[in-house]
Amino acid sequence: MAAKMNPDLKKERDGASFDPEKIVNFLYGGPDRVRRRREVVSLALDDPDFQHEDLNFMSREQQYETQLKKSILVVQKQKELGLVSPEDMGNYNYNGVFKSMSGPFGLHTSMFLPTLRGQATAEQKAKWLKMAENYAIIGTYAQTEMGHGTFLRGLETTSTYDPQTQEFVLNTPTPTGTKWWPGCLGKTSNYCVLMAQLYIHGKSYGPHPFMVQIRNLQDHKPLPGVTVGDIGPKFGYAGNDNGFLRFDNVRIPRDNMLMKYSRVMNYTIQVAGQPEPQVLDYVTQQYKLFPYLAAAYAFMLAARSMIFVYFRSMEKIGRGDITVLPELHALSSGLKSLSSWVMNAGIEECRMACGGHGYSHASGIPSIYMEHTPAATYEGENTVLMLQTARYLMKSYNQSLQGEKLAGSVAYLSGVQPVPAAGRTRNVLDLNVLIQAFQHRAARLVHEAALQLKKERQTGKDQPDAWNAAAVDLVKAAKAHSQYFVVKNFADRLTDPALDSAARAVLTRLCQLYALHDIVNSSGDFLEDGYLTGADIRQARRHINALMAKLRPDAVALVDAFDFPDGILNSILGRYDGNVYQHLLEWAKASPLNKTDVHESYYKYLKPFLEANRAKL
Amino acid sequence: MAAKMNPDLKKERDGASFDPEKIVNFLYGGPDRVRRRREVVSLALDDPDFQHEDLNFMSREQQYETQLKKSILVVQKQKELGLVSPEDMGNYNYNGVFKSMSGPFGLHTSMFLPTLRGQATAEQKAKWLKMAENYAIIGTYAQTEMGHGTFLRGLETTSTYDPQTQEFVLNTPTPTGTKWWPGCLGKTSNYCVLMAQLYIHGKSYGPHPFMVQIRNLQDHKPLPGVTVGDIGPKFGYAGNDNGFLRFDNVRIPRDNMLMKYSRVMNYTIQVAGQPEPQVLDYVTQQYKLFPYLAAAYAFMLAARSMIFVYFRSMEKIGRGDITVLPELHALSSGLKSLSSWVMNAGIEECRMACGGHGYSHASGIPSIYMEHTPAATYEGENTVLMLQTARYLMKSYNQSLQGEKLAGSVAYLSGVQPVPAAGRTRNVLDLNVLIQAFQHRAARLVHEAALQLKKERQTGKDQPDAWNAAAVDLVKAAKAHSQYFVVKNFADRLTDPALDSAARAVLTRLCQLYALHDIVNSSGDFLEDGYLTGADIRQARRHINALMAKLRPDAVALVDAFDFPDGILNSILGRYDGNVYQHLLEWAKASPLNKTDVHESYYKYLKPFLEANRAKL
Repeated sequence: MAAKMNPDLKKERDGASFDPEKIVNFLYGGPDRVRRRREVVSLALDDPDFQHEDLNFMSREQQYETQLKKSILVVQKQKELGLVSPEDMGNYNYNGVFKSMSGPFGLHTSMFLPTLRGQATAEQKAKWLKMAENYAIIGTYAQTEMGHGTFLRGLETTSTYDPQTQEFVLNTPTPTGTKWWPGCLGKTSNYCVLMAQLYIHGKSYGPHPFMVQIRNLQDHKPLPGVTVGDIGPKFGYAGNDNGFLRFDNVRIPRDNMLMKYSRVMNYTIQVAGQPEPQVLDYVTQQYKLFPYLAAAYAFMLAARSMIFVYFRSMEKIGRGDITVLPELHALSSGLKSLSSWVMNAGIEECRMACGGHGYSHASGIPSIYMEHTPAATYEGENTVLMLQTARYLMKSYNQSLQGEKLAGSVAYLSGVQPVPAAGRTRNVLDLNVLIQAFQHRAARLVHEAALQLKKERQTGKDQPDAWNAAAVDLVKAAKAHSQYFVVKNFADRLTDPALDSAARAVLTRLCQLYALHDIVNSSGDFLEDGYLTGADIRQARRHINALMAKLRPDAVALVDAFDFPDGILNSILGRYDGNVYQHLLEWAKASPLNKTDVHESYYKYLKPFLEANRAKL
Repeated sequence: MAAKMNPDLKKERDGASFDPEKIVNFLYGGPDRVRRRREVVSLALDDPDFQHEDLNFMSREQQYETQLKKSILVVQKQKELGLVSPEDMGNYNYNGVFKSMSGPFGLHTSMFLPTLRGQATAEQKAKWLKMAENYAIIGTYAQTEMGHGTFLRGLETTSTYDPQTQEFVLNTPTPTGTKWWPGCLGKTSNYCVLMAQLYIHGKSYGPHPFMVQIRNLQDHKPLPGVTVGDIGPKFGYAGNDNGFLRFDNVRIPRDNMLMKYSRVMNYTIQVAGQPEPQVLDYVTQQYKLFPYLAAAYAFMLAARSMIFVYFRSMEKIGRGDITVLPELHALSSGLKSLSSWVMNAGIEECRMACGGHGYSHASGIPSIYMEHTPAATYEGENTVLMLQTARYLMKSYNQSLQGEKLAGSVAYLSGVQPVPAAGRTRNVLDLNVLIQAFQHRAARLVHEAALQLKKERQTGKDQPDAWNAAAVDLVKAAKAHSQYFVVKNFADRLTDPALDSAARAVLTRLCQLYALHDIVNSSGDFLEDGYLTGADIRQARRHINALMAKLRPDAVALVDAFDFPDGILNSILGRYDGNVYQHLLEWAKASPLNKTDVHESYYKYLKPFLEANRAKL
């Protein structure tokens, strides 16, 4: 019996102006392909062999085992079902069975096979491709190293030619040269395509690809000289055994270098003479991180002021004076929302600025994000709270229009000047100029939201409908108001006599950066009514670059000043002593999947599968 | 022996312009408080009783058990150590022991105790407060329901006064009235403050707080009529047993209504006569979701075109013509980065737009985020890829300056007009006007990035240093170029004859919304050189509101047209039949923590703790 559709949802569907099937066909290339896609996906979705407990209820080891079992079934069933086109196989495997999650054979099909097909010579293909295509061996692509992702020339794994034996000798000379992240490497693969620096007669020829066996085909144990394992739990990808790999004088035949393009590659390679630059010297990296560093300071100082306002207000409330409540509520609602929104985006920016390492739970960042992002929702959903701030702003603004003098955090609304003075030249590094700009923006947006609200009422809407129709403008005004408070408070706190001149100088730069970054980032708010000019914005951008250069040498010390001991920060990347790489490896080795070199799932699933496939060849 | 500091990091610290300790003192309120804070935090960090295996290596049940054990130790040790000020207790517990993660007594200290202190009468305090303060009972605060978060008046749990017995009778009349999310409710608490609709003699008095025992003090089993359990795994908060709670004719004494403010509360309550509005009717909600809906369509269509370009290029490359490679690389690098950045932000916006439910793994959204956010980093880090697009743009721009005619995706750079025609009036709904605006922005930003690069060279920097100094502008130009491609491609695809007029109409609205939202969102880019005016931007904002209103009835059908069957989407919130609430509860009941009503950790840790505390009273 078909489940009854929720009536609200049925109403939505009945009210649509178009036939969704028409757009499905448009998006997916016509009715025939849509029909085929649905057919193939259903073969997977309706297959009882692919039903299992919710992955969310499983430990990571159970998830890996479940995905491995499914991976093997996929290979067998695709054959039985005669699915051969890449489109059918993708729909069945990636969409239907794995629901676009990652599995232990993912790299075998997406990287190992295509690399063999594309970069092996005919002789090399004859040797390995059939085995690989028939899953007699499982492979991955091992390029990324612990210390080297994007900077390919920086790879440290070496493959040194020994003319005596006509072999290559593989070595991992450093901790940072450990292969790190390749999917399906930790427990599943027994082969890999390895990117390593080629050395012949002492001369470096840059990175080249080599076919390398890493595990025994009999018992799946790592070969002598090979250290291989799982890199530990990550943000997502629980069912994938992303791995690490180290070599200690491992010898492979000279024919294992993938040769098809080797001449071309030698030609294009420039061997780097200089060390890899400090990642913090990249201006794009500074531009990602330093504004959030400034925001962290801005919000910490705003929080201190807010706590002060809170206690002062509670004292008044204790004496029976509840007139302070609306302002307290408006200010705290706006600041909670603004700061938690920026925090959310900032944590994720930091995570992604760390490259792959940011995804590992060893970095601590996934956990920091997951534990703190709920602040945007609990104790008042952010948009709802911003609208409460807006309600207070509208009330205050209307009082001011009726001649009342406003006080406290909204005093500035009394002096709204919607039309700015034109043609002024400004020094946008001047904190007073910055404060004035933020004040002007907030006042203008409050004025415009009030106007919008009035217009909506004039079209005949009742108050709740008019409020809803103007809500985007109202939220914008409330954000600008909160932002003004944060900037002004930051600037005010710089006069604190507890600061010495060096500390004051660096905090002033952070305050300027915080303000200028928001101006450049939402420059339309300041340009729209001509309050700032295009020249001001260009000046602001130049100042940001200059401020970042000045803050660069202080960046680490500014983070040290948050005073989070390692025990609290709980991040291998953020260790105070900076000894990141050896501890990453140690941490990974303690991960449950690494309790044994060969995971128990091998005996249950992988061994019989591989052996049957080898027997067939 | 102190660990040796990484020399790069030591150099960073040595180069700082200020003493971090000065800023630590400034941030945390002076040297005395900093000293005390460090002292108290160390008491926790250095205590061997709080050392345990990495939580990342544990199943959720193990994490809960570990956090419960620590919670009990914290209560005992805080007493032994004489930590009594809120600041000391917070530093010890929240920072030192829990490293700002959430534990099973969190709601007891943050909500249950303060509510009793603030809202109970003197008689009620005498009855419960001492028990609660001494952990003879553990409580939480049960307000949020499955169907009601922000809209407090919508709560459905009822507390009906029975004058015969002078009791309140508690009931959960619907699935949506199930209490859902309260922290520490699932397995830990034996009491709660319950927010329920008060009914006396058939008359509703709105939500009131009641003190309710939910588990037996002897064996921790739920009391008759009480159904209580854990809501299942979430994004973070693994060690917290956020719970559900249902009542079936549970009777509590009349004195259990918390009375201190009851008169005031009755006065302010407005009993709602209207049903809670559809959340999608809120314009703020539309403004969060509809631009991303438009972006999903824009990127799907861009992907189809990109795949077409890819196959055409591969064909040429197969024939030995590799001249197409640079453009293919530039275009795919820019589109991959742009789309994965927007995807990341969009998934999180969707998650947060679902309120609390978005955090539950039942929604599927955390898993979708974790499985897809790596796209911003792997196969080329986004910023690095954008800079590769920029490199191609700079090369093409310089060729154009030297009189070469550009073709393909950069043809428009030949006609760069840095100074726009002024004073034009535009219809910014017109797709050609929109395409022109995006083209102009891209061309201008390419021009300005080239100028910036040239200026940096003129200051004497070498090419890599100049490139780095201009990198923020270069990335901005590459983004604008990619965005132009996406907008133009979307508009071009609307002429596809496969579309009927209804489908074309709704897709045209999406295309307009996509373009206008970016214009409003980065309005400074268009205002800075006067290409668009403040009036254009205001017009764009009005159009966005109108487009969202027109798209509102089609929103569900537009999502249906993605054609993801439930089996792939794997989301209880996204079920095609919309029967969300009963399935949420079913899912939670299957969660491992709910295998038994009383978790085994109760016998190991909670029972001896509670009994010892009761014995002392």
